[in-house]
Amino acid sequence: MKSFSVVGGDLRYIELATFLSRDKNKRVFAMGFDKNVFTAADVKLVNSSSREENRADYIILPIPAAKDDNHVNANFYTGDIPMKSLPQLLHEGGTVFAGRMTPAHKKLFEDKGISVIDYSEREDFAVMNAVATAEGAVQIAMEETDETLSSQKILILGMGRIAKVLIKQLVGFSTDITAAARKPQDLEWAKIFGGKGLTLSKVFENLSEYDLVFNTIPAMILDETKLIKMKKSAVIIDLASKPGGVDFEAAARLGIKANHALSLPGKVAPVTSGEVIAKTIANILIERGEDYE
Amino acid sequence: MKSFSVVGGDLRYIELATFLSRDKNKRVFAMGFDKNVFTAADVKLVNSSSREENRADYIILPIPAAKDDNHVNANFYTGDIPMKSLPQLLHEGGTVFAGRMTPAHKKLFEDKGISVIDYSEREDFAVMNAVATAEGAVQIAMEETDETLSSQKILILGMGRIAKVLIKQLVGFSTDITAAARKPQDLEWAKIFGGKGLTLSKVFENLSEYDLVFNTIPAMILDETKLIKMKKSAVIIDLASKPGGVDFEAAARLGIKANHALSLPGKVAPVTSGEVIAKTIANILIERGEDYE
Amino acid sequence: MKSFSVVGGDLRYIELATFLSRDKNKRVFAMGFDKNVFTAADVKLVNSSSREENRADYIILPIPAAKDDNHVNANFYTGDIPMKSLPQLLHEGGTVFAGRMTPAHKKLFEDKGISVIDYSEREDFAVMNAVATAEGAVQIAMEETDETLSSQKILILGMGRIAKVLIKQLVGFSTDITAAARKPQDLEWAKIFGGKGLTLSKVFENLSEYDLVFNTIPAMILDETKLIKMKKSAVIIDLASKPGGVDFEAAARLGIKANHALSLPGKVAPVTSGEVIAKTIANILIERGEDYE
Amino acid sequence: MKSFSVVGGDLRYIELATFLSRDKNKRVFAMGFDKNVFTAADVKLVNSSSREENRADYIILPIPAAKDDNHVNANFYTGDIPMKSLPQLLHEGGTVFAGRMTPAHKKLFEDKGISVIDYSEREDFAVMNAVATAEGAVQIAMEETDETLSSQKILILGMGRIAKVLIKQLVGFSTDITAAARKPQDLEWAKIFGGKGLTLSKVFENLSEYDLVFNTIPAMILDETKLIKMKKSAVIIDLASKPGGVDFEAAARLGIKANHALSLPGKVAPVTSGEVIAKTIANILIERGEDYE
Repeated sequence: MKSFSVVGGDLRYIELATFLSRDKNKRVFAMGFDKNVFTAADVKLVNSSSREENRADYIILPIPAAKDDNHVNANFYTGDIPMKSLPQLLHEGGTVFAGRMTPAHKKLFEDKGISVIDYSEREDFAVMNAVATAEGAVQIAMEETDETLSSQKILILGMGRIAKVLIKQLVGFSTDITAAARKPQDLEWAKIFGGKGLTLSKVFENLSEYDLVFNTIPAMILDETKLIKMKKSAVIIDLASKPGGVDFEAAARLGIKANHALSLPGKVAPVTSGEVIAKTIANILIERGEDYE
Repeated sequence: MKSFSVVGGDLRYIELATFLSRDKNKRVFAMGFDKNVFTAADVKLVNSSSREENRADYIILPIPAAKDDNHVNANFYTGDIPMKSLPQLLHEGGTVFAGRMTPAHKKLFEDKGISVIDYSEREDFAVMNAVATAEGAVQIAMEETDETLSSQKILILGMGRIAKVLIKQLVGFSTDITAAARKPQDLEWAKIFGGKGLTLSKVFENLSEYDLVFNTIPAMILDETKLIKMKKSAVIIDLASKPGGVDFEAAARLGIKANHALSLPGKVAPVTSGEVIAKTIANILIERGEDYE
Repeated sequence: MKSFSVVGGDLRYIELATFLSRDKNKRVFAMGFDKNVFTAADVKLVNSSSREENRADYIILPIPAAKDDNHVNANFYTGDIPMKSLPQLLHEGGTVFAGRMTPAHKKLFEDKGISVIDYSEREDFAVMNAVATAEGAVQIAMEETDETLSSQKILILGMGRIAKVLIKQLVGFSTDITAAARKPQDLEWAKIFGGKGLTLSKVFENLSEYDLVFNTIPAMILDETKLIKMKKSAVIIDLASKPGGVDFEAAARLGIKANHALSLPGKVAPVTSGEVIAKTIANILIERGEDYE
Repeated sequence: MKSFSVVGGDLRYIELATFLSRDKNKRVFAMGFDKNVFTAADVKLVNSSSREENRADYIILPIPAAKDDNHVNANFYTGDIPMKSLPQLLHEGGTVFAGRMTPAHKKLFEDKGISVIDYSEREDFAVMNAVATAEGAVQIAMEETDETLSSQKILILGMGRIAKVLIKQLVGFSTDITAAARKPQDLEWAKIFGGKGLTLSKVFENLSEYDLVFNTIPAMILDETKLIKMKKSAVIIDLASKPGGVDFEAAARLGIKANHALSLPGKVAPVTSGEVIAKTIANILIERGEDYE
C-alpha cells in the first residue's frame, strides 16, 4: 500500500488528494491546509512534526513548489511549511513530485538521496491541460458574448496544443474558424482540425472580419496598430501567460472587450485539474515500472 | 423602401430592431419601449397615436404576442399598448408577424384584411433556435460543473432538434456521449451525429454511470425513482419547457444539482436570437416573392 | 425458438440469413438459392414443397418482393418460386416481411390471415441505408478522382437523409463543403452538420467553383444548361434513383465524368446491408412486443 | 519570370509540372519523359543537350533523386539522364530541389556553387502527405471490406501524423475508433481527435474485438502471436514502409486479409501529390524571401 502526501497548493491539490483517496490501495496524507477541507474524502491531515506513521512514499508539491526561498507554496494555509522540513516526512527511497522547483530546493532533497521529478514539464501534463484550458476559453467566450459561437467568425492566433484543441472544440459550433500561424505545416494542421489556415500577415490584413479572437501566442501580437483595425464589437480572449499578447489598455481605449484568461484549468475545472496532476504522476510511476494501476 | 415596426417584446426584439436598422434599405420603427434603447441604431421610437409618416409595411410582435386579453406583451414598457390600436399603424396591404397570437387577436387584424403570420411555428425558426438553445445548454453545463466536459460521461434524453445539435456540439469535447430515445431511427441519428444511441429503458438501467445529463423530453422523465439511481455528483440540465422533465424537489432532496434552463436563446445570446427572428421573417418574405434580400 | 425463412433476394439476403443464423436462438431456412451459399453458416436450404419441419414463423422477402406477377424476386435462383406457394410454408400466426409488395400479392397472404409488413418503408431502415449509401458515395468519389477529397471544393445537392450523412462523413476530409437546398431550415442543417448552406439558385450561379458534386435530388437538376457552367475536370456522383438527376449524355459530350451510383448499400457493403434488414425486422418485432433481443 | 525544370519522377511529377504551368508567371520545362505527356499544359519538353534558352532557375528532382550511382530516377523515360549533366541546365544562382539525394550527388552540385534543398524532409511536406496517405488508407479499407466503416470496430496502431489524420477522417463514419500508442500524451491526442486512446499492451489483450486495423508503426507489430488472436474476418491495412509491420505470410496462412499499402499518395491521388510537392517548394521559396506567391 503506497502512501502519498499532498503538501500545499491551490484548489486543484485538494481535488488531487480527494481523487487519490478514492483508491482504497492508497493512503493519502495532506499538509498545508488550515482546516480539514477533505471531510468527505479519506485524507488524513498531518503536520511537519509528524511521527513515523505519517511518513509517505511520495510527496506531491504544487506548481511552483515554493512561495519564497524557504517555504512551500500553500494557498490554503496561513502558516509556513519550511521546504527543509519535508525530507524527514518521506520513507527511505521516497520521491518528490514538484512543479518548477528551484535548483536550491532540488539540491536539498537530492543531497539526501531523494529524487525530485518535475511533473509540470511533461508532455502528457501539457496536453491534458491544453484540453482543460481550451474548454475554459470556450466557456469564457460564451459568457463574454451576446451572440452564439455558431454565428461568429472566429480567429485563433497560434497553432500550438491549445490552439489545436480549440479548433476541434469550436468546430462543433461554428463553420467559420480561422487559425493563423507562421509555419506552413501549422496551416495544414489547422485544416486537418477543421478550420482554415492563414499566415499571420494575411490575417492581419483582414482583422476587421473577425468577431471573436483567441490568442495563444506568447508575444505582443495584438498591439494598438492591430487593435485599431478590429471591429469595436469584437471580443478577444487572451490565453498567453503574463504579460499576454494583447495591449489591454489600448483595447479598453478602443472599446474592444479583451479578457486575459489566466490559469484557466484550475479556475473553470478544478476537479479535472486535480485529476490531471494525479494522472501525470501515475504515468510517471508506470514508466518507472512501479506497481501502479 | 420597406418599413418595419417592432412592437413590444424582450431583449431579443431590441436586437431585432437594431439588426434590421443596419440595412439602409429598410426603415425601422419601434414601439413599446420606455426609453430609447436604440441610441446606436437608426430606429425611430414611435407611439400608437402616430401619424401617417410612422405607418409601417410590417408589424413584428413578440412570442407570445399579447400579455393579456387586450394588450401587447412588452417587457420594456410600463404602459399598455392595446392590440386593437395596431391595425391603424400599418400601410394598406401590410402584414403582421406574431408569435402564438390568440384567434381573437388574429381576427382583429384579419377582419381588416391584414394577414397575420406566426413566425414562431416555422421549422427554420425552430432549427435556428435549437442551435442557440443547445449552445446555451453547453454554457450552463460548463458553469455548473467543476470538471471539464471532456472528462465527463454525458447523457442526452430525447433526440429532437435540440438533442441532435447538442451531440454535434459536445462531440468537440467529449468522446463519451449517449443519447436515449424511443424510436430506432433516432438511435441511428445519435450515431450519425457522433454519439451512442440507446433505448430509454437501457439507459435507465445504468443511470448511475452518467456525470452530466441533458433532458429535452417534455414529460416527467427523471422522477424520484430515476433520480435515486443517479450519482450524487451528477448535474442535470433540463431543457424541457415548463413544468420540465425533472422532479426538482426530489433532486434537491437527493443533493443532485438540477438546473431548469428556460428561454435559453434569449438569455445567453440575445443578439443572435434577435437575428434569428429577423432571418425567419426574411425567409417568409422571400417565399412570398416579395422583394427582399 | 423462432424460425425465419429467407426467400429469394440478392447478395444482401445471403448476408441477412448468415447474420440471423449466428444467433443460436433462431433457426434459419433459405429458399431461392441455386446452391448452398451458406456453407459457413447454420442455414438450412429448403424448397417450396418442404414439409412441416421446414415451416417458419417468419418469411422474409426481398425489395421488391416479386420479379413478375407470380414469382418471387430471386437473383441467385434459376428456377421460379410462385408467390402463392409461400403461405403453406408459414406456421399458424406467421408473418411475412417484404419490400414493396403489390396489393395483389399482399391480398394473397392476408386472405389467409397472414399479416404482411413492408420493412422497406420504415424510417429506421431508411436512415441505416442512408449511412451505407453515403459511405458508398464517398468511396466512389475517392475512386473517380485523382485528387484527395481534402483538396476539393465539394457540393451536395439536396438535404435529405443521405445528404446530411454525406456532409458529416466528408467533414472529416474537407473543410469546403456546400449543401444546396430549397428550404431555409435545410440550409441551417447544412451548417449544423459542418458545411455551408446555400440556396440552389445561389449555387447555380457559381457552379464552376466545384470540383466534386454529389446529387441527391430525384429530379433533372443538372441538365445541359447547368453542366455547361461546370469545370471540365469536375466529377459528379448522382445518387438519385432512376432516371437520376443528371443529363448523362450531355455530361459525356462535355467531357465531365458523371457516375450514376445506384443500389450502393448492396454493392459496396452487402454484409452491412443484410444486417440493416435484420435490424429493421428486429425493431419491428420488438415494437410488436414479441420476445426478441 | 521564374523558370522550373522538372526532371524525371513518376506520375506525381507530371502533375507537378502541369500544376506549375497553370501560373502564367512561370515557365516550365520537363525532361526525362519519353513523350509529351503534358499536351494539355504549357510545359516544354527539353533534353540535356539543351541550349541557353532552356536553362531554368530551379531544377526539381524526384524522391529519391537518383535511380543508381549516376542517373536520375525517371519512371517515364527509357533513356538515361546523367546527374552530372544537370548543373549546366541551371541559370547562375539556380537551385536544385531533390528528395533523398546522396551526399555524392549533392557534392556534384554544391561544388559548382549550386544549393540543393531536400523538400522531402520538411514538416509541411510530411503533413500534407499524411493527409493524402490517410485518405488513401480509408479508400482501401472501403474497398477491402463488405461492411461499412460505420459498422466496424476500428483500431489504429501508432499515433504519428498519419494516425492522427486517420482518426479525424474516420470519426465521420464510425463512433468506435481506438488508437494504440506507447506515450501517454498520444493517448490524450487520440481522445482529442475523437477516438479512444489505449496502450499497446491493453489493445493486444483484446485484439479479437477489432474488425479493421490500420498499422502506422514501422516495426513488426502484428507478428503471428498477435495475428492468431484476431478475428478471421478482420482486415489489416499496413501503412508502415517496407518491410512493414505485419507478418503477411502468417496473415495469409490464418486467412486474415492484410494489405500492405505503400506509396499511397501517388497512387490514389497523383494530382494532389504533385501539388503537395509544388506547395512545399513554394513554401521554401517564400521562406527564403524569394518573390513568389
